Amino acid sequence: MSGVAARPADADLFATARAEAAGRDAADPLARFRDAFVLQAGTINLDGNSLGSMPRAVVARMERVLGSEWSKGLIRSWGGAGWFALPETVGDRIAPLIGAGAGEVVVGDSTSVNLFKCIAAALALRPERRVLLLQEDNFPTDNYIAQGIADMVPGVSLRAVKSTDAFAGAIDDSVAAIVLSHVHYRTALVEDMAAINRAARAAGALSVWDLSHTTGAVPVDVAGAGCDFAIGCTYKYLNGGPGAPAYCWVSPELIERTRQPLSGWMGHKTPFDFSFDYEPATAIRRFVCGTPQILSLAALDAALELWAEVDLPQLHQKSRDSTEFFIDLVERSCAAFGVTVQSPRDGSRRGSHVAFGYENGLQVMRALAAQGIIGDFRTPDTMRFGVAPLYIGYGDIVRAVAALHDILLTRSWDRAEFRGTTVVT
Amino acid sequence: MSGVAARPADADLFATARAEAAGRDAADPLARFRDAFVLQAGTINLDGNSLGSMPRAVVARMERVLGSEWSKGLIRSWGGAGWFALPETVGDRIAPLIGAGAGEVVVGDSTSVNLFKCIAAALALRPERRVLLLQEDNFPTDNYIAQGIADMVPGVSLRAVKSTDAFAGAIDDSVAAIVLSHVHYRTALVEDMAAINRAARAAGALSVWDLSHTTGAVPVDVAGAGCDFAIGCTYKYLNGGPGAPAYCWVSPELIERTRQPLSGWMGHKTPFDFSFDYEPATAIRRFVCGTPQILSLAALDAALELWAEVDLPQLHQKSRDSTEFFIDLVERSCAAFGVTVQSPRDGSRRGSHVAFGYENGLQVMRALAAQGIIGDFRTPDTMRFGVAPLYIGYGDIVRAVAALHDILLTRSWDRAEFRGTTVVT
Repeated sequence: MSGVAARPADADLFATARAEAAGRDAADPLARFRDAFVLQAGTINLDGNSLGSMPRAVVARMERVLGSEWSKGLIRSWGGAGWFALPETVGDRIAPLIGAGAGEVVVGDSTSVNLFKCIAAALALRPERRVLLLQEDNFPTDNYIAQGIADMVPGVSLRAVKSTDAFAGAIDDSVAAIVLSHVHYRTALVEDMAAINRAARAAGALSVWDLSHTTGAVPVDVAGAGCDFAIGCTYKYLNGGPGAPAYCWVSPELIERTRQPLSGWMGHKTPFDFSFDYEPATAIRRFVCGTPQILSLAALDAALELWAEVDLPQLHQKSRDSTEFFIDLVERSCAAFGVTVQSPRDGSRRGSHVAFGYENGLQVMRALAAQGIIGDFRTPDTMRFGVAPLYIGYGDIVRAVAALHDILLTRSWDRAEFRGTTVVT
Repeated sequence: MSGVAARPADADLFATARAEAAGRDAADPLARFRDAFVLQAGTINLDGNSLGSMPRAVVARMERVLGSEWSKGLIRSWGGAGWFALPETVGDRIAPLIGAGAGEVVVGDSTSVNLFKCIAAALALRPERRVLLLQEDNFPTDNYIAQGIADMVPGVSLRAVKSTDAFAGAIDDSVAAIVLSHVHYRTALVEDMAAINRAARAAGALSVWDLSHTTGAVPVDVAGAGCDFAIGCTYKYLNGGPGAPAYCWVSPELIERTRQPLSGWMGHKTPFDFSFDYEPATAIRRFVCGTPQILSLAALDAALELWAEVDLPQLHQKSRDSTEFFIDLVERSCAAFGVTVQSPRDGSRRGSHVAFGYENGLQVMRALAAQGIIGDFRTPDTMRFGVAPLYIGYGDIVRAVAALHDILLTRSWDRAEFRGTTVVT
């Protein structure tokens, strides 16, 4: 807000923060990845936890897919351009990011559809148990999918607990599977995955983890932590593009015993035999259903190329440091306006986004967006900012918080154009 | 095969056919649509029933989606670029092609996933009936999906009949739903949809139709023929691109009573309320599951633009005429080599592809492909050629059949490079 004078103490605060940010950005070993993205001058994408920015490699790949593979290769590209194998080749790019091995991950269908496959497969492995244990405020689609399964299969019922602290106590011998997010979509709270898995195993239940807010930002080791099933979205920190296909991992100890009901022809052992009986492919390929959406899948494949060069410990460290920097600066500059911190202060329990409570948060986020600072709002009062370590620098954070501060100071969120009730998606 | 002399009678045959084709192409009211596609000189896509050629409009659309909507609009494009509504706006482009009304079709997920939704929804509407009636040699994924549902839901069983002539007799009061393709994927036989639906209704069963080989080539009227559910793929005659998302239609008489178990957040009545309980959206939006794959969906949207200008009766007539021309020419030139006609001769019962039996069909198709003539092979002995009316002319057909004739005459399919057992996808 040009022309509006901040209070002197705040001006000092931001001047100091700017200097510190400049130093941190200069020393950032990940800074070079910024050039791998198409970033618009004047815009800061602090919603990369919802839709990641576009890697440059996607443009060239789409030109190849359209200009050659589809238009010239035609049907031959299923083999010749590797389309048929893409669910697995793209899966192999994701595997090292989550602690999985090669050949253990496939990509295709939406996060919701993959959840359905995994929950149904878990139920099939525990035929004597019919309860699905949910967390009440997990991302809604996870619970909706569980509800869809309970509606479809007589005898299956749901049990929802409010806090995951109560999970261990709620897992009894009726529970077939627990369904939980590793990083909470609103608060960014990171669950103690290993401990919850131990409790589930001790009670004989299987675990289905949603890693949507984890992958590409937060450390996770599905094998080491004893997960049974894991799924995740790829359009957040993996930057696969709007609605990019999701992935699915199943423990190698279970995979050959699993059956999942979305048994489409692309997951058949010999799809081109055109036999009547479904016979699942070996390993994780059996979690592929129908023909994959190749344009979206190829874009994701290109978006993932840069991850081979990313040092994951550096990435995770920057995520912790930059979210802490964000929270500190908001707390010091905006707490006086009634802004509260909703994300964990303990960096080891915090994902890569930060959440702040403010009653008029929706209007504030609109006022920020009008300045090119893109975050989002989650009902009822959460202002949410994603800090994608590959393309968000400390300078971006200072600019965003300074803008937030000015909006609160001048109540410019109260202007007519920022009112209304429509939720920012 | 240069240097090989055809028998004089065949030379006359092809000369006459070429002249006739030239006349027909000159008079073809659909010929102008050829320019709407990227067609490669020297290549004839006679596999448009498997992967349609690329409409030029797709390239410009992808440039817009990448260069502006994703990279600049970021998350705002869910509203600002219409992404959120795409399942329905693309559905509205398909609706008139199948006899459906506006607001009755949604697009997203694969054909297999959409079949799952519809079969499950049909079972939920007939809780007292537990049998799914299938056709034994329907396209495999249709039967695989039914098997997946039967595995998942205790009490559901499958009944498969060999020929659809036996369908009416097999529908008793245990049958919840029949699952059938309108146009057979191998032979192109067109089922008598209205008669089968009458038999199903009389017995109290619901119908789930797969229109994958119908849409964009063969007349169909889902409402007029009394269908209950219909799904279809969009990468064949609709030219949506490899693995383009499928569509789904539900009879308006049923839709408000249906529940489908892939109840993802994008089909929720108020997805951004983030409520615990799933409440389906009104109308066909409830058949949307998770976040749609926007790159693939936007490409399909662009590919469908030209259909607003297509005269459907002209399209259907050309499909009948050109497949008949194809069959006649093969029969007259290739029957002596042992090639048999597997598609119906009655044009009113034939889809837009033609199937011929030949023991070494796989090798023949490879030899054709080496000349840029792309068809496919379906086990055990079917040489299959799709005749997409918008970009395949009569001259293309003559060229393809003449090449087929020469390959058979010289047994050039017997050369080492065409041997092997890998199935052409």
